[in-house]
Amino acid sequence: MNRIHAVPMKHVNIQDGFISRAQRLMRESVIPYQWRALNDSVPGAEKSYCIQNLKIAAGKIKGERGGMVFQDSDLAKWIEAAAYLLQSERDAQLEAHCDEIIDLMAQGQMEDGYFNTYFQLVEPQRRFKDLRDCHELYCCGHFIEAAVAYYEATGKRKLLEIMERMVALIAREFGPGEGQRRGYPGHQEIELALVKLYRTTGKKEYLDLAQFFIDERGREPYYFDLERQQLPNDHFPLNSEFGRAYFQAHLPVRQQQEVVGHSVRAMYMLCGMADVALETGDATLYQACRRLWASTVQKRMYITGAIGSTAYGEAFTFDYHLPNDTIYGETCAAIGLCFFASRMLQFGANREYADILERALYNGVLSGISLDGERFFYVNPLEVWPQETREVHDFKEVKPQRQPWFGCACCPPNLARFISSLGQYAYGYDAHNLYIHLYIGGTLDVTLGDGTLAALRVDSTLPYGGQISIEIRSPGHYGLALRVPGWCQEYTVCVNGEAVKAPVEDGYLYLHRDWMKGDKVTLVLALEPVRMYANAAVHHDAGLVAVQYGPMVYCAEEADNGKDLHNLVLPSGAAIYAEYCENCLGGVMTLKTEGLRREGADDALYTTQPPRFIPQEIRLIPYFAWANRGEGEMRVWLQEK
Amino acid sequence: MNRIHAVPMKHVNIQDGFISRAQRLMRESVIPYQWRALNDSVPGAEKSYCIQNLKIAAGKIKGERGGMVFQDSDLAKWIEAAAYLLQSERDAQLEAHCDEIIDLMAQGQMEDGYFNTYFQLVEPQRRFKDLRDCHELYCCGHFIEAAVAYYEATGKRKLLEIMERMVALIAREFGPGEGQRRGYPGHQEIELALVKLYRTTGKKEYLDLAQFFIDERGREPYYFDLERQQLPNDHFPLNSEFGRAYFQAHLPVRQQQEVVGHSVRAMYMLCGMADVALETGDATLYQACRRLWASTVQKRMYITGAIGSTAYGEAFTFDYHLPNDTIYGETCAAIGLCFFASRMLQFGANREYADILERALYNGVLSGISLDGERFFYVNPLEVWPQETREVHDFKEVKPQRQPWFGCACCPPNLARFISSLGQYAYGYDAHNLYIHLYIGGTLDVTLGDGTLAALRVDSTLPYGGQISIEIRSPGHYGLALRVPGWCQEYTVCVNGEAVKAPVEDGYLYLHRDWMKGDKVTLVLALEPVRMYANAAVHHDAGLVAVQYGPMVYCAEEADNGKDLHNLVLPSGAAIYAEYCENCLGGVMTLKTEGLRREGADDALYTTQPPRFIPQEIRLIPYFAWANRGEGEMRVWLQEK
Repeated sequence: MNRIHAVPMKHVNIQDGFISRAQRLMRESVIPYQWRALNDSVPGAEKSYCIQNLKIAAGKIKGERGGMVFQDSDLAKWIEAAAYLLQSERDAQLEAHCDEIIDLMAQGQMEDGYFNTYFQLVEPQRRFKDLRDCHELYCCGHFIEAAVAYYEATGKRKLLEIMERMVALIAREFGPGEGQRRGYPGHQEIELALVKLYRTTGKKEYLDLAQFFIDERGREPYYFDLERQQLPNDHFPLNSEFGRAYFQAHLPVRQQQEVVGHSVRAMYMLCGMADVALETGDATLYQACRRLWASTVQKRMYITGAIGSTAYGEAFTFDYHLPNDTIYGETCAAIGLCFFASRMLQFGANREYADILERALYNGVLSGISLDGERFFYVNPLEVWPQETREVHDFKEVKPQRQPWFGCACCPPNLARFISSLGQYAYGYDAHNLYIHLYIGGTLDVTLGDGTLAALRVDSTLPYGGQISIEIRSPGHYGLALRVPGWCQEYTVCVNGEAVKAPVEDGYLYLHRDWMKGDKVTLVLALEPVRMYANAAVHHDAGLVAVQYGPMVYCAEEADNGKDLHNLVLPSGAAIYAEYCENCLGGVMTLKTEGLRREGADDALYTTQPPRFIPQEIRLIPYFAWANRGEGEMRVWLQEK
Repeated sequence: MNRIHAVPMKHVNIQDGFISRAQRLMRESVIPYQWRALNDSVPGAEKSYCIQNLKIAAGKIKGERGGMVFQDSDLAKWIEAAAYLLQSERDAQLEAHCDEIIDLMAQGQMEDGYFNTYFQLVEPQRRFKDLRDCHELYCCGHFIEAAVAYYEATGKRKLLEIMERMVALIAREFGPGEGQRRGYPGHQEIELALVKLYRTTGKKEYLDLAQFFIDERGREPYYFDLERQQLPNDHFPLNSEFGRAYFQAHLPVRQQQEVVGHSVRAMYMLCGMADVALETGDATLYQACRRLWASTVQKRMYITGAIGSTAYGEAFTFDYHLPNDTIYGETCAAIGLCFFASRMLQFGANREYADILERALYNGVLSGISLDGERFFYVNPLEVWPQETREVHDFKEVKPQRQPWFGCACCPPNLARFISSLGQYAYGYDAHNLYIHLYIGGTLDVTLGDGTLAALRVDSTLPYGGQISIEIRSPGHYGLALRVPGWCQEYTVCVNGEAVKAPVEDGYLYLHRDWMKGDKVTLVLALEPVRMYANAAVHHDAGLVAVQYGPMVYCAEEADNGKDLHNLVLPSGAAIYAEYCENCLGGVMTLKTEGLRREGADDALYTTQPPRFIPQEIRLIPYFAWANRGEGEMRVWLQEK
């Protein structure tokens, strides 16, 4: 394994035509909006209760705790996102809000280190007694991630210390020793968080605890049955209908052959497994990650990078079962897939990981948020018939329009923290090389493993153009490893204007040289609309075609093409033209082609008369930008003729 | 309105190559099997409890009542079916079983006439207090139908009297008068049964009660809310999640514009409405029947005659929403559609009704039972991917194989009573004409309205051949009205070997003459495989084609075509050959064509390489006969190219 480290956020400053807009949205709209949501001051939105619960726990106000059992985690994700924004730009008011929460947490934390508003205020007698369903370790994990990010951003240790006390309590309760319980979280998250805490503090006991949770998962006797024997039957009965696979606890993790169950849990588990394997060099754990990665992206992923084929259990189903309409495709799951991909990239540069990271980011993740940053999708369908989503029970989770907030609002703050920290997913380094995984414009400086300072400025016209130029800003001998995306059939690379030949390994092009300050690397990636076909085993895409342009998957909307998109037909020979539209959806590349529309021969419900096909221009927009022009039909996969 | 009466069963004796087999199955297999099921003596099948409950009510044994609240109705449907068999052929043992049940009912009936094992044994204090959910009037309706049929078959009045006492009690409890309640059944059925009882007894109060229930339905104040205010919250809470439309009580019936809600309830309601309109000449009620008929068959019916697009509420959804895989398509609903069609035919001969009756019978009804008569489908999908039905929650009602019995076993006895009484659906008469709606071979004799005796013998090679010959067995002047099916593009008709021209009105060909004994009418209907297309508004059938041969819809099964039926492609120009296969599925017409199979260009989940198409013979079998050769995929709608 050639360990590649992510370039930490504070060494990256993103300035990118496309991504900076999304990040600005986070800073200017999402984070302030979510702050109001956490404070229950967004009119018409479902109540969050987060700050209110915290104040009750801190003894500041009286009242009844509200929201989901895991409601605290929204707060944690918000702090984490805020911390990333603070890492790139200080903001006194934002920092003050964070400090306010952290102070309340300090006041609310129990003597022995325990912190969780649900169990402190609602069921104190069941602390750590229902790991399967009650998300205590999950919430703790999110607060650990927040604590690490906030410490990195501000140097303030208060939240870190709160969480170290909580972790110490957990480490006394759970473990392989005498008098300890061999439990593990029903919703994975703390594993990856503990590795972050280990990396930040250097305390190996945190890595050990992460590994303990991973090793125990799925062992016999089945822990979730043991703890359930001590609980009343009606304690969170809902999850009892799901089997062990829902929690990825059907087998010890190293024996798992296929990705199964709740898709966000699966991704977070895989991140934790990869993180532990990265730190310990555990080969069987790495092999399990490889296997489950392949199961995910080669058999159970939508073309948008969405995962989770069913709302029931928010779960994976089976190989090649990818319904476009009843999909779950939770925004958080696509984000989880990005997290997992970025971990896998740290085992060695291979574009198979970065390609999926990019696919999920530009499609299934960004679709989760409206262009104005104020509304969110939880479910990200690839085909929507609005009347069906409203009137048919199987579609009750699918919304044809983004929503202002959710009772279970995991996705909006998850989006905020991911988009705000994109810098750390774009670049990597090892002893002698700097890797560019994603072409997001900006500057970075990082000291490679051998002590060489690599400082660059990247300019990129992606995702709508293929011009990438990299300016070297400090001299040094090292390799610059540039990913050639899987969607790119042709490219040219020049150094200081001269075409160069360079070796490509696992999809990365390596330029090794003595770099001088001011050297300029130019990479031109050919971008053109391409037709994509699903594997013939995918029932739901039979006879259908999707269109991609660079990393972007496209879709047809009713706003551009009229109703009954199932009757649009894209002829296999028709040329598809790309046309940038400044005034469309905040500026997007649109695609146009001469297509057909199926028309019935008569009005009968069933007829012997075959349909007619009449010419109709088909106009496509990037998938992430759908549902920003009112309610209407949408389809990614179109009929082909 | 030119009232056409159904020819009563006792005047018809079916001897038909195709239908007699199904009827024999009822007599030799289904009825005896169901008798064992009702007695809980089928190993491995879910317990019925029916006879046991009856014995408890009659004080013969002690024990706890089991089964659904409406479990009694299975018994009623069984008696009704047995009675139809007895009408065509006496059977001492069968009659003894019926008498045994009827004796137990007489012993179990309460002093005041009440009979219902659920309320007698479980909730006596809630008698007639939960009409919405507790099916008392529904069960009563089925016993009335049984009573009428049994009386017609045997002349025995005991069950008729039991039910007249029960109806008298209901008529005291419910009505427009002082001290009566303005209730109506949550599950319609008693309305049509009361009209049958009226026709048998001549007592107009039964017709009036039927009309009362129909008139009250959907009025304000909403009766089901009124009764619910007197019930505890947890009394059958499940149905509370369904709105008024589930019960077709969202509007007074005459104001209803679209067929909605639970599809069996809708069909039974429409039968009751039509029956009342037939007896009273109520024009607005007839118009409502017409409108809701059109809504059903022009917008919300599958090509197999199945209805009910969703398992949630076993209900209709919205116009042109006809998913082939998550369909409900309950066998009982297709039977209900046949009942409704046969009522509409009584307002005047029009093939639009008989065509649908035939479509539903030969496809969505017959598919409900296995070729050996021992297993049943509740849900009748048009597309099955077995792994999906087993592993995906939305498909939990869809079974890839027929089941031996159901806890809610409404469909098997409903099939038995419908198939056993087919004679009464095939023929009709008015003052001067005899109508043949369905070409089912057999003999009949009926006295027309003007007193003329019409006696015929019909021989038919349908559904696999188009040769129909009719022998006149008694002289008389009357019109013979022969339906020309909608699927038939060409036909010839001869009388005594000479081609004749005859007027066709609303799809019926009228031969008026002085018939002589021995006259022979020969009708030859052209049968050939035809491609069928769904209306372009049907999303789920876009780009797909179905194949029909005469009244039979065809399907592809894995047993003949291999897995991945979504990759079969039927070229629009390919000739389709019909080939009778004696040894296939008990003898069926099979269809064959040179088709294609889509194959992926590579193993990637998504690829830029278009699929290849390789030649493959496609073999189709009649839809009703699917799932008789083990578990496998099945599709009615195939991709077209």
